[in-house]
Amino acid sequence: MTSKMISRRTVGVWLVLACGLHFAKADEGMWLFTAPPRERLQADYQFTLTDEWLGHLQQASVRFNSGGSGSFVSPDGLVMSNHHVGADALQKLGDEQHNYLRDGFHARTLAEEKRCHDLELNVLVSIEDVTDRVNAAVPADAAPEAAFAARRQVMAAIEKESLEQTGLRSDVVTLFQGGAYHLYRFKRYTDVRLVFAPEQAVAFFGGDPDNFEFPRYCLDVCFFRVYEDGRPARVPHHLVWSQTGVAENELIFVSGHPGRTSRLLTVAELEYLRDFAYPRVLEYILRGEVLLTAYSARSEENARRAKDDLLGYQNSRKARQGGLEGLLDPRFFAAKRESEQKLRAAAGARAELQAFASAWDRIAAAQRRIGEVALEYRFLEQGLGFRCELFGIARTLLRAAEEQAKPDGSRLREFRESGRASLELDLFSTRPLYDDYETLRLADALTWMAGELGFGHELVQRVLAGQPPRQRAAELVRGTRLKDVALRKQLYGGGTAAVAAAQDPMIELARLVDAAARAVREVVETQEEIKRQAHAQIARVRLAVEGTGNYPDATFTLRLAYGVAKGYEEAGRPVPFQTTMAGLYDRWEAQGGREPFELPKRWLDRKRRLDLRTPFNFVNTADIIGGNSGSPVVNRAGELVGIIFDGNLSSLVLDFYFTEEQARAIAVNSQAILEALRRVYRADRLADELLGRRGPA
Amino acid sequence: MTSKMISRRTVGVWLVLACGLHFAKADEGMWLFTAPPRERLQADYQFTLTDEWLGHLQQASVRFNSGGSGSFVSPDGLVMSNHHVGADALQKLGDEQHNYLRDGFHARTLAEEKRCHDLELNVLVSIEDVTDRVNAAVPADAAPEAAFAARRQVMAAIEKESLEQTGLRSDVVTLFQGGAYHLYRFKRYTDVRLVFAPEQAVAFFGGDPDNFEFPRYCLDVCFFRVYEDGRPARVPHHLVWSQTGVAENELIFVSGHPGRTSRLLTVAELEYLRDFAYPRVLEYILRGEVLLTAYSARSEENARRAKDDLLGYQNSRKARQGGLEGLLDPRFFAAKRESEQKLRAAAGARAELQAFASAWDRIAAAQRRIGEVALEYRFLEQGLGFRCELFGIARTLLRAAEEQAKPDGSRLREFRESGRASLELDLFSTRPLYDDYETLRLADALTWMAGELGFGHELVQRVLAGQPPRQRAAELVRGTRLKDVALRKQLYGGGTAAVAAAQDPMIELARLVDAAARAVREVVETQEEIKRQAHAQIARVRLAVEGTGNYPDATFTLRLAYGVAKGYEEAGRPVPFQTTMAGLYDRWEAQGGREPFELPKRWLDRKRRLDLRTPFNFVNTADIIGGNSGSPVVNRAGELVGIIFDGNLSSLVLDFYFTEEQARAIAVNSQAILEALRRVYRADRLADELLGRRGPA
Repeated sequence: MTSKMISRRTVGVWLVLACGLHFAKADEGMWLFTAPPRERLQADYQFTLTDEWLGHLQQASVRFNSGGSGSFVSPDGLVMSNHHVGADALQKLGDEQHNYLRDGFHARTLAEEKRCHDLELNVLVSIEDVTDRVNAAVPADAAPEAAFAARRQVMAAIEKESLEQTGLRSDVVTLFQGGAYHLYRFKRYTDVRLVFAPEQAVAFFGGDPDNFEFPRYCLDVCFFRVYEDGRPARVPHHLVWSQTGVAENELIFVSGHPGRTSRLLTVAELEYLRDFAYPRVLEYILRGEVLLTAYSARSEENARRAKDDLLGYQNSRKARQGGLEGLLDPRFFAAKRESEQKLRAAAGARAELQAFASAWDRIAAAQRRIGEVALEYRFLEQGLGFRCELFGIARTLLRAAEEQAKPDGSRLREFRESGRASLELDLFSTRPLYDDYETLRLADALTWMAGELGFGHELVQRVLAGQPPRQRAAELVRGTRLKDVALRKQLYGGGTAAVAAAQDPMIELARLVDAAARAVREVVETQEEIKRQAHAQIARVRLAVEGTGNYPDATFTLRLAYGVAKGYEEAGRPVPFQTTMAGLYDRWEAQGGREPFELPKRWLDRKRRLDLRTPFNFVNTADIIGGNSGSPVVNRAGELVGIIFDGNLSSLVLDFYFTEEQARAIAVNSQAILEALRRVYRADRLADELLGRRGPA
Repeated sequence: MTSKMISRRTVGVWLVLACGLHFAKADEGMWLFTAPPRERLQADYQFTLTDEWLGHLQQASVRFNSGGSGSFVSPDGLVMSNHHVGADALQKLGDEQHNYLRDGFHARTLAEEKRCHDLELNVLVSIEDVTDRVNAAVPADAAPEAAFAARRQVMAAIEKESLEQTGLRSDVVTLFQGGAYHLYRFKRYTDVRLVFAPEQAVAFFGGDPDNFEFPRYCLDVCFFRVYEDGRPARVPHHLVWSQTGVAENELIFVSGHPGRTSRLLTVAELEYLRDFAYPRVLEYILRGEVLLTAYSARSEENARRAKDDLLGYQNSRKARQGGLEGLLDPRFFAAKRESEQKLRAAAGARAELQAFASAWDRIAAAQRRIGEVALEYRFLEQGLGFRCELFGIARTLLRAAEEQAKPDGSRLREFRESGRASLELDLFSTRPLYDDYETLRLADALTWMAGELGFGHELVQRVLAGQPPRQRAAELVRGTRLKDVALRKQLYGGGTAAVAAAQDPMIELARLVDAAARAVREVVETQEEIKRQAHAQIARVRLAVEGTGNYPDATFTLRLAYGVAKGYEEAGRPVPFQTTMAGLYDRWEAQGGREPFELPKRWLDRKRRLDLRTPFNFVNTADIIGGNSGSPVVNRAGELVGIIFDGNLSSLVLDFYFTEEQARAIAVNSQAILEALRRVYRADRLADELLGRRGPA
């Protein structure tokens, strides 16, 4: 696990909180493929959802493990996602001479397709309900620590069995926050090559100011191809490209991987998010954004090195601010409190539910305990105090050696056998690392930690080792040899003895904080087990009171959403459901072409070749959230009519509750992609492949 | 007091901490004009400092009350300061059609000189030691609350008397953190007009990346003129312009207004800065910087509106990060601890000092108590929870009505009679206010406060009044009528009844939090009185142990610093003491002219007219800090050879201790200013006035 992933997780983990069942309304829902809303679709849209239709969509959907969604768009392994989902790979492929993230890329032949450093794509092949087996392994009267250990052990065992039997990546996922456990099997693709990306200026036209806004004019797409045995993979399912796009009020479906929602947290958990987690994660984001903005201003090369991380911070900032705004709406809390009261009253009033009536208080107590250790958890275990890639690598090596000596079921979950291949892909990545950039981030992290935990904190003192943070960071980055991938492989293979013998300063830093980090993680994991059990009880109360037929909170697993292409009203004025290519040029002109509203030269030169009436972006009412980026939008026939790339500002509360008054998902129209490929990029070969008119050769 | 000043103060107040006496070394020292380092100058530089030389420099020095320094450079009231000191005035003079801050300004005739909205310049006319009178008014056995009240009362009385007798602005300033009290009398100039400013691109060439760096190439100057009775004021003292600039190793003097240093805080106070104040003020800065950067990206006009504030955040960020780095150096604390131990031991060992030996513990206890209320103090009293101009105006109106009904000596200090004229200048300023910008900042402040004090905090609940922050902020800004200056005057004249009758929502918001804000302020002021008394005792211990002959910590009062023009070594390489105009073009080319390294068109067009060998910027060892910006640099003859505009990164620890190993002040060379005025701007009239060759007509 690299520190990049640590930092990602940091943003995410604050939101890892329990949820449960509730009643979907209107076009609400991030539905499991095993429990799709057949009745609603039939009743509301006279659409009969068949197993065949659903299975095809499932296997044409692709998960980007760097964080995002995508789909197969040709039988020869061609994958489409967003430019901003591919940005991580584009960033890593770049160097001092090549800025693919900014300038785009176009492979005119298969031979020119560029292999990504560490991109893993997953396709969900099968789903199995293992709830009973997981719960049976956890004794009813076990203390939380023992319950957590037992649950971890049985999950690892199920995964390992499945991996050995099928060769497929096998993950037991927790749904309904502990109400259900499903075994997901994925086909992994790790030879992934870049085929085409537009310039960032048009992919992310309007940049941060227009992010989460509509109307929009973004060609937020890029194309990869998965390979097997050195040849384009033949994939059994891909989406047929629609040349007619989408009509107003047309029913559409979105198949993708929403990352995280928190819709059915208890009031105590939501208060924690509002009063602690969100404000703190925003500090993290603001700090990173300013650090990288200032670094980027110093030179073009700096800007290139920091670009993808900076985009991530900016995007998270807007998303979290929007979420916090939802949390700070007293009407939202009043409604939450009322519905919680009703459930608690119901539980208290029914004999068969009375044992569950204390579940809310148990969650509140667990949340308080988590709050007590939250600061140390963030800095020591989640790695905010050491934010740089090299620390992440060092910790992975240190822990892998220790964990892999243990039985599979007793390891920290990220070191379980079934996850080994993905972990190694990341650990041995050949992506470039830059000393100055690593030092910059590590120095900032050490400074921040000293301010938050206090300079007098015993571990802070030992971490700084008598030096000011910047000096200490420079020493660590200069001293470590972990940039050398061959050395990483050697240490990883050599176990604890080899890791200790290396006397690498970054590994020794990881070792220095490891006992404390593990201790605080154990506290959090134990409290989360308590919450998991309580949430399972609340889910049963809901089931008794409200009945069945719902969907779990998002967990970066495949979900089906649906809705209609539809505009909305804002400040009394109608916002039409789609934009056209003409609008792109209008906005460019209105902003005087200033950054981030500049257009690539070829978009200006080739304007007259474009049909400016081509629909560009459109909004719809499907229920999505971060992680859905890159999700295919399909029509009743299952044809691809667009690709999700954003939600509007009003959609940012979807973390907590669904609304379709103004909240909208935003997609690129399939017609705009074809038009741009042919007229601007002269990428007829690629366009023809999308239309099934030729193979990839 | 506008909220702009509240927010400025906020950044500053965290640093309002005690200091004392210590031993100056090398070219160290921010010397009082009443106690200049005559012996050192004689011994080290064979320079005889005469009263005449000193008095002339004092009265040619100008304080910018918006925060900065300057000097008279012609007998007709022409004042030179930095572009970044004038930025506040330039910003306020701008509108949708005029961006003087970005584009510069050049009045070709007196009639074209533009009157500033609310700029006040002060010239220090006389200094009187009133220590005995102040201390005599404070009973030795008074409780801290009573001591604070008595001290406030006598200071106000001295000031009022002086104002009535002389008509001059009269401020009793606290020096040596309570060791001495001086009465400063200032001539005020409030009809200040803009004469000339270059484009920001060249004034601040290199922008944030090059800020606090050297080598530099900035024309960071602008010119104002003070008027009296509608005509240019004839001023008795001005600096003669040197056409030869400065030579390497030449002795130079800096006369200006260093804002705040914290060199002799106790260890307990420094720990508070390190572990609380600096990390928290950085949060404030990062938050503001991201907010305004994102707002600015949306349109040119937004960028114009936010520019000066954004520059302020960026500058503070680098300054505070540099200061924090100093605080996080364990060697610094080790030295501090050792010297404190020595003093404490000396106090304990001498009978006449034994009563003072507990001073350090009393300061530590007071600091702890301040820390307990710090969060509420920041948000409620310092106004971080309401950061916008309109709230500042509302609070001033509310409090002015209440305070002015009290005896002068019992009022909150900012409402004392002697400060009335300056307060009114600010309160009735005609500077533009923008609803969207006010709403943006207020909404962010409310959101932040809810996160920090907790949404459940009773006052937070009442402030939000059942609405989410953004909605509440919009309602307040839309509802208030305080943008109307005539209304402000009416309410200000009408006392509490008129203020209440106005039923203005922003004033009612200020009223809602006022009791709590005043209460927490009282706690802080009482603890500061305790610290003041303890610091006075520590000062006496120092005097007994170390002897006399030193300077107080900076307090934005006039000081004399000196040093030599001299390069330094960095990473083993020599950094020459000055740059030339050729270097400007070299750096522009090396950075490809990308922002913030772009040059105004006329600088490119007129390059060949310039003598590129002209010295541009130079560094020197004078002891300066923020507030010294715009300070004249003079040679032995008292001629102006440059103007201070920055310090290098190594100088940022000067808050806490002096060093001249690498720390340097950075100045614009007087020759570069003339060269640019004549060759680039064709401002021969202004250049001739600087050389005394013609009047201002």
